[in-house]
Amino acid sequence: MSAPQIPAEQWAQVVEKTGGPCVYKKIPVQKPGPDEVLINVKYSGVCHTDLHAMMGDWPLATKIPLVGGHEGAGVVVARGELVKDVEIGEYAGVKWLNGSCLSCSFCQQSDEPLCGQALLSGYTVDGSFQQYAIAKAAHVARIPKECDLAAISPVLCAGITVYKGLKESGARPGQYVAIVGAGGGLGSLALQYAKAMGLHAIAIDGGAEKGEMCKALGAQSFVDFSVSKDVVADVKAATPDGLGPHAVICLAVSEKPFQQASQYVRSRGTVICIGLPANAFLKAPVFDTVIRMITIKGSYVGNRQDTAEAIEFFRQGLIKAPFKVVGLSQLQEVFELMHAGKIAGRYVVDTAK
Amino acid sequence: MSAPQIPAEQWAQVVEKTGGPCVYKKIPVQKPGPDEVLINVKYSGVCHTDLHAMMGDWPLATKIPLVGGHEGAGVVVARGELVKDVEIGEYAGVKWLNGSCLSCSFCQQSDEPLCGQALLSGYTVDGSFQQYAIAKAAHVARIPKECDLAAISPVLCAGITVYKGLKESGARPGQYVAIVGAGGGLGSLALQYAKAMGLHAIAIDGGAEKGEMCKALGAQSFVDFSVSKDVVADVKAATPDGLGPHAVICLAVSEKPFQQASQYVRSRGTVICIGLPANAFLKAPVFDTVIRMITIKGSYVGNRQDTAEAIEFFRQGLIKAPFKVVGLSQLQEVFELMHAGKIAGRYVVDTAK
Amino acid sequence: MSAPQIPAEQWAQVVEKTGGPCVYKKIPVQKPGPDEVLINVKYSGVCHTDLHAMMGDWPLATKIPLVGGHEGAGVVVARGELVKDVEIGEYAGVKWLNGSCLSCSFCQQSDEPLCGQALLSGYTVDGSFQQYAIAKAAHVARIPKECDLAAISPVLCAGITVYKGLKESGARPGQYVAIVGAGGGLGSLALQYAKAMGLHAIAIDGGAEKGEMCKALGAQSFVDFSVSKDVVADVKAATPDGLGPHAVICLAVSEKPFQQASQYVRSRGTVICIGLPANAFLKAPVFDTVIRMITIKGSYVGNRQDTAEAIEFFRQGLIKAPFKVVGLSQLQEVFELMHAGKIAGRYVVDTAK
Amino acid sequence: MSAPQIPAEQWAQVVEKTGGPCVYKKIPVQKPGPDEVLINVKYSGVCHTDLHAMMGDWPLATKIPLVGGHEGAGVVVARGELVKDVEIGEYAGVKWLNGSCLSCSFCQQSDEPLCGQALLSGYTVDGSFQQYAIAKAAHVARIPKECDLAAISPVLCAGITVYKGLKESGARPGQYVAIVGAGGGLGSLALQYAKAMGLHAIAIDGGAEKGEMCKALGAQSFVDFSVSKDVVADVKAATPDGLGPHAVICLAVSEKPFQQASQYVRSRGTVICIGLPANAFLKAPVFDTVIRMITIKGSYVGNRQDTAEAIEFFRQGLIKAPFKVVGLSQLQEVFELMHAGKIAGRYVVDTAK
Repeated sequence: MSAPQIPAEQWAQVVEKTGGPCVYKKIPVQKPGPDEVLINVKYSGVCHTDLHAMMGDWPLATKIPLVGGHEGAGVVVARGELVKDVEIGEYAGVKWLNGSCLSCSFCQQSDEPLCGQALLSGYTVDGSFQQYAIAKAAHVARIPKECDLAAISPVLCAGITVYKGLKESGARPGQYVAIVGAGGGLGSLALQYAKAMGLHAIAIDGGAEKGEMCKALGAQSFVDFSVSKDVVADVKAATPDGLGPHAVICLAVSEKPFQQASQYVRSRGTVICIGLPANAFLKAPVFDTVIRMITIKGSYVGNRQDTAEAIEFFRQGLIKAPFKVVGLSQLQEVFELMHAGKIAGRYVVDTAK
Repeated sequence: MSAPQIPAEQWAQVVEKTGGPCVYKKIPVQKPGPDEVLINVKYSGVCHTDLHAMMGDWPLATKIPLVGGHEGAGVVVARGELVKDVEIGEYAGVKWLNGSCLSCSFCQQSDEPLCGQALLSGYTVDGSFQQYAIAKAAHVARIPKECDLAAISPVLCAGITVYKGLKESGARPGQYVAIVGAGGGLGSLALQYAKAMGLHAIAIDGGAEKGEMCKALGAQSFVDFSVSKDVVADVKAATPDGLGPHAVICLAVSEKPFQQASQYVRSRGTVICIGLPANAFLKAPVFDTVIRMITIKGSYVGNRQDTAEAIEFFRQGLIKAPFKVVGLSQLQEVFELMHAGKIAGRYVVDTAK
Repeated sequence: MSAPQIPAEQWAQVVEKTGGPCVYKKIPVQKPGPDEVLINVKYSGVCHTDLHAMMGDWPLATKIPLVGGHEGAGVVVARGELVKDVEIGEYAGVKWLNGSCLSCSFCQQSDEPLCGQALLSGYTVDGSFQQYAIAKAAHVARIPKECDLAAISPVLCAGITVYKGLKESGARPGQYVAIVGAGGGLGSLALQYAKAMGLHAIAIDGGAEKGEMCKALGAQSFVDFSVSKDVVADVKAATPDGLGPHAVICLAVSEKPFQQASQYVRSRGTVICIGLPANAFLKAPVFDTVIRMITIKGSYVGNRQDTAEAIEFFRQGLIKAPFKVVGLSQLQEVFELMHAGKIAGRYVVDTAK
Repeated sequence: MSAPQIPAEQWAQVVEKTGGPCVYKKIPVQKPGPDEVLINVKYSGVCHTDLHAMMGDWPLATKIPLVGGHEGAGVVVARGELVKDVEIGEYAGVKWLNGSCLSCSFCQQSDEPLCGQALLSGYTVDGSFQQYAIAKAAHVARIPKECDLAAISPVLCAGITVYKGLKESGARPGQYVAIVGAGGGLGSLALQYAKAMGLHAIAIDGGAEKGEMCKALGAQSFVDFSVSKDVVADVKAATPDGLGPHAVICLAVSEKPFQQASQYVRSRGTVICIGLPANAFLKAPVFDTVIRMITIKGSYVGNRQDTAEAIEFFRQGLIKAPFKVVGLSQLQEVFELMHAGKIAGRYVVDTAK
């Protein structure tokens, strides 16, 4: 294979000041450091985190100017001299965790997301809303050649994250798991991963249309909180013995759904929190939590092994999330729809447009 | 061995109406049912739960009239016709979990404390503040003959409960565990179990006297919240790498210590809640809980296997909790001291006085 | 519901002396003890263990005379006075573990199959090759009313056993598991449980016909040991990265397949032994086992919770094992076919014929 | 701190041909690569593996010429340009695992010892029997300044390995673990780690002198196989309930002790194999392994986290293994003693002599 041609300049979406907007412009292509690769990003999913990054409303500062994006799927076009196991021409993904030290006690225990020196794509380093992105070779997602790059891009953050949450829940095949916010972008992926893992999903969301979609994506039952008179009772009734689901995945943690979760989860069950609303608090009654031995657990993004596993489920054809492709140049419009709460499923940007 | 003489009447402390007081009087001795044993209680520890039972301030109704007590150590004097594996003359203990169905999904998975039909000694059935108490044979604590019955009685609830909490925390030998409320009755036992389990305990409590006691009981360090300017920083500094303890055992869950716990616990660490203050809530920030992957977990009393294990640590001489013996007739006075917060360590009542 | 009529006599197959044959004759119907139920067995699967029981070739003595059988599905018709949670008229199953003490350290930890006082149906107590069988209420399998009794009977031993083995293997959804002897009675159930649990099964057996059946039952690939030139290489090649399956379920442990298993299993993987050939030995090279950190683990029958879970998979319609129904009166003929190695799938006897 | 002076030449013990002997001579000091450090080795433990490396009797080829040694404790004197988190002047250790790819599925799951590209100190790369050794920065053992370098050197392989084995055994604090070969170099460390982990050790070895030593090192009991009439019965009798130890650590796996281990281990227990005799096989009866649900598991060296933990136990003063210091120049004599089976405890070589 002849070496790919790498241009000196590229199109990118750049956040020039906190609060946005993002600006579609030409910027230089970077060169990978000795332990890095350069990826020609073809498609990138758009995540709610990207909007948080632009708005700067999380308690963690971003790089400025910033190229956002952390669900970038593309082709490796260059690599540093220490990189031995990623080949030019291979498919690879830029994910939220761009790099980590690989040496601290967290990295040593495969908890790279907890590394104190973690690099975050589209947040503390430039991400995938550009045509050529840099990532640490040890951390790029390895994407098999038979995968469609547009379809897999939302898996690189949303997919990995919900898969990780399901793993962390400890739910075993044949058990029940409630997915709160099942009709959203993460929720629809969670339903498919749950099914592929042999779990029975109880989808919780609002509206008949979302109910239809959830069942089509594999939910065993649907509880519509917009019409239910007693969500707690309805969720428990969706399990064969009426004792409630073994685990709950909270994708939209606001106080009310979270408190409900700790009520309908089975004794000894686990409530996994994934969603990150600004300034929100978990709250649960001590008495019930103790005598029912309930676990409440935060789950962040996946590590490298979780990434490989989440991608393998996709490769086997088990994960088919709905998504819509627009040009990278239209990113600001996507953010505006997102801000207005008008997005169903996942948007993916095509860096060629 | 000749059969022991069982009197028709006995001394007991009876709560005749919710709110108390308890009345020292003679009541009939019961006969064990087919799957039960009758235990001649020699000593019984006095737990804060006994006061809650008398006062009726928990969201769970008690039997009335009620003989309280659930840390009763004594001798088996009679058994039902189905009981094959508990012998007359053996030492045995009446613990919080008097009986359970042994058949539901919780019992089948060794989570008898979560059984929907659990019988609770000194709460839903009569307990150990009498000379002769009934318990389900399958659930009585088996006490080896070399054990001192007065000394072991507080192990039957307090000891088992903190041992269970330490197990549930997932902390491994060589790791650090903070004990919040280390100077109290449960705390002093927790320090000793932690040490016997190869854990390094950071004791947290108020006052220099408690600090001395905690170190004598095996704490590796002591953080005095009554003088510390920054409890979170001080607890983290008590671990060699400054990242905080791997687990926290909250014995006195009120909002402030609990929220501190979720701040100083190591990322990926576990906060175990055991204490049961009335009407209290757990509260933790979502963002930090998620990105640090913190687990918050309620831990109730131990199951039968936990009981056997907790007793075996005692038998090996590894658990020496301070306690003070008074007559059963003085129980109401003990409750008054307890209500006034004037008890250090554990009171044990002698049923012969 | 009026009480069912229970006859004084019934048809049964009785092994009158070790070595057999079994004799089809009328014997009295027993009355359940205080903690027992009487089950009107409708159908009973025939297991290879039943033949071992009749022949007496295992290192564990049977009751004589013996009514064999331990996969009996039927209806509860009577119960002892202590039985509270099994109702007359409910469906229930007689399984291998007829009863256990529920009090020893194994029972306390949900390992009832390891109880030193376990009662074994059709082995140390009479089993399901009769119209009315006794079982300890705490141990009977609870069968939901929507289940077909003939179809579920093989699940009561074969199904539970392979499900337990898959659980013990530690294989997680998305991982690969090789099933050695996949075309047999246990193997066909193992393939279906594996699929329902989100595992990818590599079926290993001999002959194209078995290969077809295995794929129809859900195997992702098939390795035919009768034609393969290198079974170890072929099994490793059936995993995407060529490193071999994460677990192996050995249903036909003879020395050669077992030694092969320890060669093709992935490093850190687990080889589960379930099959019980008489006088066989496990053998594996120390060097390879140590530096590849391989686990070899024996898995016996399931406990009560495993039983409930295995049945729930069936109830959900995920387990459809091939079986053939004949009359109870024909049991000796089934044994003769079994002895001659001429059985494919599972035979089920109808106690009404 | 001024940069340390690094000589161009150094003393080393070099194996110039398979079969030995090792030759004490001057060789050049190497320069570290970009991700490597150079360690001025002060002391190095001598392990039986070093003799295997020289003799070439394992089924894995060594580098030739070879500088052996993999228990080297010293001071970092130089580092490559990519190394950020190891400082010049810090104490560090060269251990068996010199480096690994940090990217394969094993490394991603913290199983670096299983990495297909692992570099092995004193085996596939030069080790610690020289004054200046190279190691991958990500893999060097971090040794706190308060540690004695001679005393800690045997911990770097022997200590880590037995600690890992104890972790892999799954034995919990309060449980019993038998150590087979407890009187040897690994055994004496295993006894101390077991005690520090809250485990009760049953030491198994031959001779009254070893019995004394084992008890002094923390064994709760000693079974002398040279005088016992029934080792299996004696080991079971050393547990309070007579059911045998929960785990067994086999440090000297020859067929007989291994087969005994599978007999006396408690049902559901685990036999860990660590010893690596050439051409040996594990062998266990299928029937007993299955119905008692026994696990047999190979355990290799520790990963980076295990290393840090094993060293921390040492730092806390809990591990005090007997050792004897001689000059590096005397290494061949140590090998001769080892070959003759004349070594008790551990030899450590001082590279300055």
